[in-house]
Amino acid sequence: MEDWKKQNLDIETPNNITIKGIIGLLMGNTDCNDNRKVISLGIGDPTAYSCFHTTAVAQEAVVESLRSTKFNGYSPTAGLPPARKAIAEYLSRDLPYKLSLEDVYLTAGCTQAIEITLSILARPGANILLPRPGFPIYGLCAAFRQLEIRHYDLVPDKGWEVDLEAVETLVDHKTVAMVIINPGNPCGNVYTYQHLKKIAETAKKLGVVVIADEVYGHLAFGANSFVPMGVFGSIAPVITLGSLSKRWLVPGWRLGWLVMNDPDGSLKSPKFVERLSKYCDICGGPATFIQAAVPTIIEQTQEVFFRKTINLLKQTSDICFEKIKEIHCISCPYKPEGSMAIMVKLNLSLLEDITSDIDFCFKLAKEELVIILPGLAVGLKNWLRITFAVEPSSLEEGLERLKSFCQRHSNLQNGC
Amino acid sequence: MEDWKKQNLDIETPNNITIKGIIGLLMGNTDCNDNRKVISLGIGDPTAYSCFHTTAVAQEAVVESLRSTKFNGYSPTAGLPPARKAIAEYLSRDLPYKLSLEDVYLTAGCTQAIEITLSILARPGANILLPRPGFPIYGLCAAFRQLEIRHYDLVPDKGWEVDLEAVETLVDHKTVAMVIINPGNPCGNVYTYQHLKKIAETAKKLGVVVIADEVYGHLAFGANSFVPMGVFGSIAPVITLGSLSKRWLVPGWRLGWLVMNDPDGSLKSPKFVERLSKYCDICGGPATFIQAAVPTIIEQTQEVFFRKTINLLKQTSDICFEKIKEIHCISCPYKPEGSMAIMVKLNLSLLEDITSDIDFCFKLAKEELVIILPGLAVGLKNWLRITFAVEPSSLEEGLERLKSFCQRHSNLQNGC
Repeated sequence: MEDWKKQNLDIETPNNITIKGIIGLLMGNTDCNDNRKVISLGIGDPTAYSCFHTTAVAQEAVVESLRSTKFNGYSPTAGLPPARKAIAEYLSRDLPYKLSLEDVYLTAGCTQAIEITLSILARPGANILLPRPGFPIYGLCAAFRQLEIRHYDLVPDKGWEVDLEAVETLVDHKTVAMVIINPGNPCGNVYTYQHLKKIAETAKKLGVVVIADEVYGHLAFGANSFVPMGVFGSIAPVITLGSLSKRWLVPGWRLGWLVMNDPDGSLKSPKFVERLSKYCDICGGPATFIQAAVPTIIEQTQEVFFRKTINLLKQTSDICFEKIKEIHCISCPYKPEGSMAIMVKLNLSLLEDITSDIDFCFKLAKEELVIILPGLAVGLKNWLRITFAVEPSSLEEGLERLKSFCQRHSNLQNGC
Repeated sequence: MEDWKKQNLDIETPNNITIKGIIGLLMGNTDCNDNRKVISLGIGDPTAYSCFHTTAVAQEAVVESLRSTKFNGYSPTAGLPPARKAIAEYLSRDLPYKLSLEDVYLTAGCTQAIEITLSILARPGANILLPRPGFPIYGLCAAFRQLEIRHYDLVPDKGWEVDLEAVETLVDHKTVAMVIINPGNPCGNVYTYQHLKKIAETAKKLGVVVIADEVYGHLAFGANSFVPMGVFGSIAPVITLGSLSKRWLVPGWRLGWLVMNDPDGSLKSPKFVERLSKYCDICGGPATFIQAAVPTIIEQTQEVFFRKTINLLKQTSDICFEKIKEIHCISCPYKPEGSMAIMVKLNLSLLEDITSDIDFCFKLAKEELVIILPGLAVGLKNWLRITFAVEPSSLEEGLERLKSFCQRHSNLQNGC
């Protein structure tokens, strides 16, 4: 094969770490002679635990739609109209205006919603603002689409709020959007109404679109209740990304959405809508029979199911936060109020033979069969992301092993 | 908003026609005061007819996997290993070598397999060879990824074989791949072993990868049996795209695959595999519980189910081919032997008030409530693509209406 073609096949891949990639490597580093079970506090997918199973209403709605044999065919572009309408109505409950089904595009999970959004905004020379720490799929998508990435910081001492002054210095006339993730992944924070309003006002002033990742929408269990960014859609246009994945505990169903919260129509020109629709046509969206179940899932899921998940996440986040206090070499600047994860800071000066967060996580996996995500994977070196969406007794055991590990590697006398 | 950003949001969209887009327009052009039912011969999705329902084995395998509650979580990159293994074994039955699960990447239908393949091959300045007529998603994908499109012709008088001499003149050192679709969409042809071998030898000589779209794999009912392009994978590397969609009659399940038929490893360098894996991570693939059902679906589907579909397609393709002979203004150069569609040529000189294939299809939809795809949508102006994967009595009625329409618009006396 000619050189150019060889180069083509060996074209440089964005060298981002992916969460799945690093979790796979950590799993491969566990000691297979150790008979204890592996405990993963590494990924926002608690579905392996029966306490985090979805509601029978949702499951049986999908079974019924599949068995009807009416939904084995292709769905129209952007999804089945009744599913789009149900999501428009679901999201409109919390908005000062009504969404229509035309505002809603169904996607294969929130991941595909991210990919579509970044792809339709990308053009040569454009840049996008991403939070640090954040969710690595954004960086990977942006790199594949040649969108320049500019990171703004989340401030741990201010409840991981957006550093809006930094945002203003980062934006230029080629900035197309800023991404916010609320409830926060990886930080477990929930933004106030006032902070979200300030974000919208900053976006308006700077002329950028807000991409609001609300995949953890409604999973708030602290003082701040969840406010969707779309509430401020008439200040600045908002593209909201969400899915059934987290609130309904079905990340593997791959049923997400991309929603135009743009009541004044400043974003959705006919050309933009055409581009978005055509892009959806090349994507291969969610299964039609799962789409067909969406209206029933949304209408018939009982509040008690949501409440149970919230209570459980509150309980496990408390366990996590309290246990971390007992471990000297890590500290948590913020008690989580939402989502499924917490960021903790590693104090390497208290450890005698650990050189970095990566080193910490690989040794932890090997010695204790506990999987934790190194902060570098989400943009913060020498921090750790711990997922607390884990069955309580497993979480306690995992954190106990983490404590033993830290004591064993401590450079203090008696390990404490 | 600043000018640059306005332009950004109004960035030019590839102006390709999409099949879903034009079918939607044609549907909108039907006369709603006409009480007859709309008959669609426009799209390769026969699932609305009970004679084209999937097998209970497949449906119940999905129900079981969903109800097990084991597959509500994320799947690993590239898919669940047992599903990848089952597809590797399924495809290996017809190959002179064995595929392994590492060769198989699960995708949200064949559409996403196309998107992934073109995206990982794209780089600035590269071009790709597409068949004309072809499947418009390739052109749309290539345009979104800035891959230059070069069309080679399929030759109607030679059973829609690839014009390999033309291929040689089109290729240059920046050609990354050539796409073939076999069994053919939109032409209903099935390539011989010898012709596929010649394609592989040409690809080898020219140093290009073959992308073999086999979404209609095994749907062959004529003299030529289906031979997968992967048989020639040691002549030239082949990326095979397929899905459950057509053979199992479940296009809406969105379960496809991208397979590296590259026994000599000339394509799959570590960098290439890394890029492909990372790309899969940003895509949002098929639902995990559908993936989990794949081994059962492949192992337990009875030959009698496949046979029934083949027999039915043979019957309906015969109906279609014979009926077309009765209609003077259209002619078919080739009796279909596979897939679900046929290309027929429009003789505008025999019609008195029809200016093009587009005009023909819009007037047909309005006057007869019959939906046929204009050839322009698949690259051949003043041809028509007729889908014969339709319940026989509906197909007959649709073709009878087509005949009436042609007689009414004929410029010959008595309309014949």
